[in-house]
Amino acid sequence: MHAYRTHNCAALSKGNVGETVRLSGWVHRKRDHGGVLFVDLRDHYGLTQIVADEDSPALPILDGLRLESVVTIDGEVKARAEGTVNPNLPTGEIEVFARAVTVQSTADELPLIVNSAEDYPEETRLKYRFVDLRRERVHNNIVLRSNVIASLRRRMIDQGFTEFQTPILAASSPEGARDYIVPSRLHPGTFYALPQAPQMFKQLLMVAGFDRYFQIAPCFRDEDLRADRSPEFYQLDFEMSFVTQEDVFNAIEPVLAGVFEEFSGGKSVTPAGSFPRIPYAEAMLKYGTDKPDLRNPLIISDVSDHFQQSGFGLFEKIVGTGGVVRAIPAPGTHEKSRKFFDDMNDWARKEGFAGLGYVTRKGGEFGGPIAKNHGPDNMAKIYAELGLGENDGLFFAAGKQSDAVKLAGAARTRVGEELGLIPDDRFEFCWIVDFPMFEYDEEAKKIDFSHNPFSMPQGEMEALETQDPLDIKAWQYDIVCNGYELSSGAIRNHRPDIMYKAFELAGYTREDVDSNFSGMIEAFKLGAPPHGGSAPGIDRIVMLLADEPNIREVIAFPLNQRAQDLMMGAPSAVSARQLRDVHIRTIEPPKQEKPAAED
Amino acid sequence: MHAYRTHNCAALSKGNVGETVRLSGWVHRKRDHGGVLFVDLRDHYGLTQIVADEDSPALPILDGLRLESVVTIDGEVKARAEGTVNPNLPTGEIEVFARAVTVQSTADELPLIVNSAEDYPEETRLKYRFVDLRRERVHNNIVLRSNVIASLRRRMIDQGFTEFQTPILAASSPEGARDYIVPSRLHPGTFYALPQAPQMFKQLLMVAGFDRYFQIAPCFRDEDLRADRSPEFYQLDFEMSFVTQEDVFNAIEPVLAGVFEEFSGGKSVTPAGSFPRIPYAEAMLKYGTDKPDLRNPLIISDVSDHFQQSGFGLFEKIVGTGGVVRAIPAPGTHEKSRKFFDDMNDWARKEGFAGLGYVTRKGGEFGGPIAKNHGPDNMAKIYAELGLGENDGLFFAAGKQSDAVKLAGAARTRVGEELGLIPDDRFEFCWIVDFPMFEYDEEAKKIDFSHNPFSMPQGEMEALETQDPLDIKAWQYDIVCNGYELSSGAIRNHRPDIMYKAFELAGYTREDVDSNFSGMIEAFKLGAPPHGGSAPGIDRIVMLLADEPNIREVIAFPLNQRAQDLMMGAPSAVSARQLRDVHIRTIEPPKQEKPAAED
Repeated sequence: MHAYRTHNCAALSKGNVGETVRLSGWVHRKRDHGGVLFVDLRDHYGLTQIVADEDSPALPILDGLRLESVVTIDGEVKARAEGTVNPNLPTGEIEVFARAVTVQSTADELPLIVNSAEDYPEETRLKYRFVDLRRERVHNNIVLRSNVIASLRRRMIDQGFTEFQTPILAASSPEGARDYIVPSRLHPGTFYALPQAPQMFKQLLMVAGFDRYFQIAPCFRDEDLRADRSPEFYQLDFEMSFVTQEDVFNAIEPVLAGVFEEFSGGKSVTPAGSFPRIPYAEAMLKYGTDKPDLRNPLIISDVSDHFQQSGFGLFEKIVGTGGVVRAIPAPGTHEKSRKFFDDMNDWARKEGFAGLGYVTRKGGEFGGPIAKNHGPDNMAKIYAELGLGENDGLFFAAGKQSDAVKLAGAARTRVGEELGLIPDDRFEFCWIVDFPMFEYDEEAKKIDFSHNPFSMPQGEMEALETQDPLDIKAWQYDIVCNGYELSSGAIRNHRPDIMYKAFELAGYTREDVDSNFSGMIEAFKLGAPPHGGSAPGIDRIVMLLADEPNIREVIAFPLNQRAQDLMMGAPSAVSARQLRDVHIRTIEPPKQEKPAAED
Repeated sequence: MHAYRTHNCAALSKGNVGETVRLSGWVHRKRDHGGVLFVDLRDHYGLTQIVADEDSPALPILDGLRLESVVTIDGEVKARAEGTVNPNLPTGEIEVFARAVTVQSTADELPLIVNSAEDYPEETRLKYRFVDLRRERVHNNIVLRSNVIASLRRRMIDQGFTEFQTPILAASSPEGARDYIVPSRLHPGTFYALPQAPQMFKQLLMVAGFDRYFQIAPCFRDEDLRADRSPEFYQLDFEMSFVTQEDVFNAIEPVLAGVFEEFSGGKSVTPAGSFPRIPYAEAMLKYGTDKPDLRNPLIISDVSDHFQQSGFGLFEKIVGTGGVVRAIPAPGTHEKSRKFFDDMNDWARKEGFAGLGYVTRKGGEFGGPIAKNHGPDNMAKIYAELGLGENDGLFFAAGKQSDAVKLAGAARTRVGEELGLIPDDRFEFCWIVDFPMFEYDEEAKKIDFSHNPFSMPQGEMEALETQDPLDIKAWQYDIVCNGYELSSGAIRNHRPDIMYKAFELAGYTREDVDSNFSGMIEAFKLGAPPHGGSAPGIDRIVMLLADEPNIREVIAFPLNQRAQDLMMGAPSAVSARQLRDVHIRTIEPPKQEKPAAED
């Protein structure tokens, strides 16, 4: 017989009754029924009920053990009595009568209870993560993460992608977020940097002719942390050669839709091949954001024209001075009190906006100061245009376009939430496309890149030479799910001539480009294919599927919000010799930057 | 029609003749046959022959392009004339008549030629790695690496393992090799370390109840580099709970045998389930190493007894003072000149040994000074015992046991190579088992751990309490293939009581253990399962399969032997602000340690 187990703790069923078995696991729960002890024995796979009565030498041993001790049980499988069958447990029809027990590991007093859903401070949970990870919810989250990643890999390979490893000891880049740097021992005074993303390497793999790259890529950013940010995170990084934007979409939609369908637990998922493509300008108008949550049925409309001449002077003035008025419907709010509408206005002010105007409507009767001043007939025209009914309210976000867009987007979300319009039984994907290549920088009074200078402009060289730069779109796209941006991507600019020209329009010389981006430019001069890709965030995907708002719930051993590993004690002081080896010394931080010496 | 291609460059065959197609790729090779230009168009998938004649507008454009420019060809598939079919090429039966060409990227003058196997200095190859990687051999190596890793993953999942990610920003450990350290911004004066291996984390995953972990794990060691060492390397890291050594072997043999069979290119592979298990002591005797190359049929024997009384005084003296004499057969060397044997002796001296004795034999006649002094009858007894024939020579490694073992092992390899006895048509695996738990430290005059203090001693607590420590074996094992150690592994000591006792035997107090290994000891006190694992080196596996002696041939973007990325310029100086952010400054290295200021 095997030293530790003939079966795991989820394997036994009625068909095993009468067998002599050996099980190993953790003492998950004990119930003493006066002379009969019931033990739930737990392993990775499940639970099995162990019974020890006074005839069994196992009884006193099990009785004396603390929960979470590890034991091996020899015993006999018996059917449970009819009333005691547990239909929720795969092993619920049987129990194992213990004949003997071997203690593999005795547990001391525990810092947290494994068999309850009780909440503990994150500090306790992370310091004793090896106990915390035994708890059902986080254990399942980590297994989900593993399964999601395995599924992503399988699906990428099925789509003809090949996984490559790119360096983690990489070069520091002046762009982007703050790098983690690693001092070099062999080259005094110099540093590696951990990659913020393998962007350069994946593009160089395309230049090297590998055609379809992917990687479950660890990425590193030394940024201040939030609930959804970890210093170390993973991307489904991919890149393809000889492709258009449509090819990228066609390659990745089945992967994302497939993995969400596999793990959504019955929630519906936008089918592959039918992810809506929403131009950036349209998204900003209709949803007030480039990360729209399409589960929310509310659509924002521009109603500025209606207020060019209006009894409501404030909006007339805003529209007259170049501002806009955006309308957010609040359907079926005839039963809502005035307080509901006023609270929305208060919320907008708290968020730093000038205020959120509104119209109420009940049985066709308009209410509120805007309706009164603008006039019911004029208001009815707006309602007709927007297709609103006689019991629908309407909010207004007015002001400078950028402010109004932002407020309208936030109000759309809040109204949707308050009215319970956002169903949580689905994952709705979309692409945001046609990002502007350039924007006017009000402060610098010049044209600059609006997002990524390395994306290919739509229309390529001809567009740069003939169009108003502010009209040029980029082959750049975001993928959004339920209001979360999973990733940005682009068809890259692989042509040095087009890159020089694009930078020229943004006010940079050829020399600027050559000196700042020599690596890529040099590579593109030795035969580069058209290529593009993206890099959906894996932690975010798992958070969505696990319905966890905190990234640390989907990472086995996360750093805490102060970037510490409380379990292993990182970061920590190192020896003088280690510092000398890499030619650095530490300095005291300036007092004013860090008042409390809490470390 | 697709913007870039209807087919890839390996897709077209006779069935496509007559079709209008579009192909994209690199101009791999051009041949001008006076008015007709042949171009081999290359992509990741293969080559297709393009033909342009004087009727085609493509001719002058293709004619003017440098090799490695990227083009899109519109043309018609035609069958090649009978004599010009290339049976070695999947597309060898057809060619594409170019009607039009679009230049996607023009190549400048190239630093290395892609379409030849010509060798270039590593500096050139790594600086222009994105061109080097287009070359057939290294391109294939990197694809092989990707396929090997994908296959390992699939096979591990098939064996019931789950892949987890462990932290890369980890804690520095006083054990082992030199860490790469990463200064913390939020915690001045402290550092993360990149993991040398996820050893602690994988054991904690077992303590957390995950049962069967694996990871294609990046590992980092800041050691001086050799051909087979990279600062950043990958292990197939795995760990299992509730297992014996046999379970580990049974889980991993199918994975390794399977992946080698899949990619060996027809070489034979030791079948899963029949990897020999060789006790450490036996390996040191029979092969003179714990990394035996079992392809080499030569077996070393101990012949010390024969020299207890001998006319050959040197060996008699060695044996009399506690040394040993080991014999290495040199079968069928009757035609070898005296020089062959003398050269072996010279080689041994150059390697730092006292010398390698020998006996020649031809038609039953012994030759050489040892045979003469020891006497032919006594020599015949040795030959009978070793089963050697009348045309077999014999080498002797004599001296202190540790020296003789080492020399015998090296001589066995050299004799095997010189005599062409090592077949290169197979991969021979074995396990080395039963490593001693302790050894006697001659310098410190005390017992110490011989390998890994954290392995479980065979016989557990009882062995520690009752046996001579030097007789105790550990549940520790190496896996060896063709003379290369792929990994060490062990059943871990998960019991604090046994760990304290083992350290006590090696002269350490309970306090020593608690203060140096608090993380693991603490975890083991809260319910730990018996567990064990290993971590075969992936780069080494790919090197064996690709038959490449240099690790940099199987890494897409390796650091060079001075740990530099010449392409991206890492390591490099960083800004004063970056240093300030992480509370360090650089210091000049002491002059004597680094005379030349070459960086």
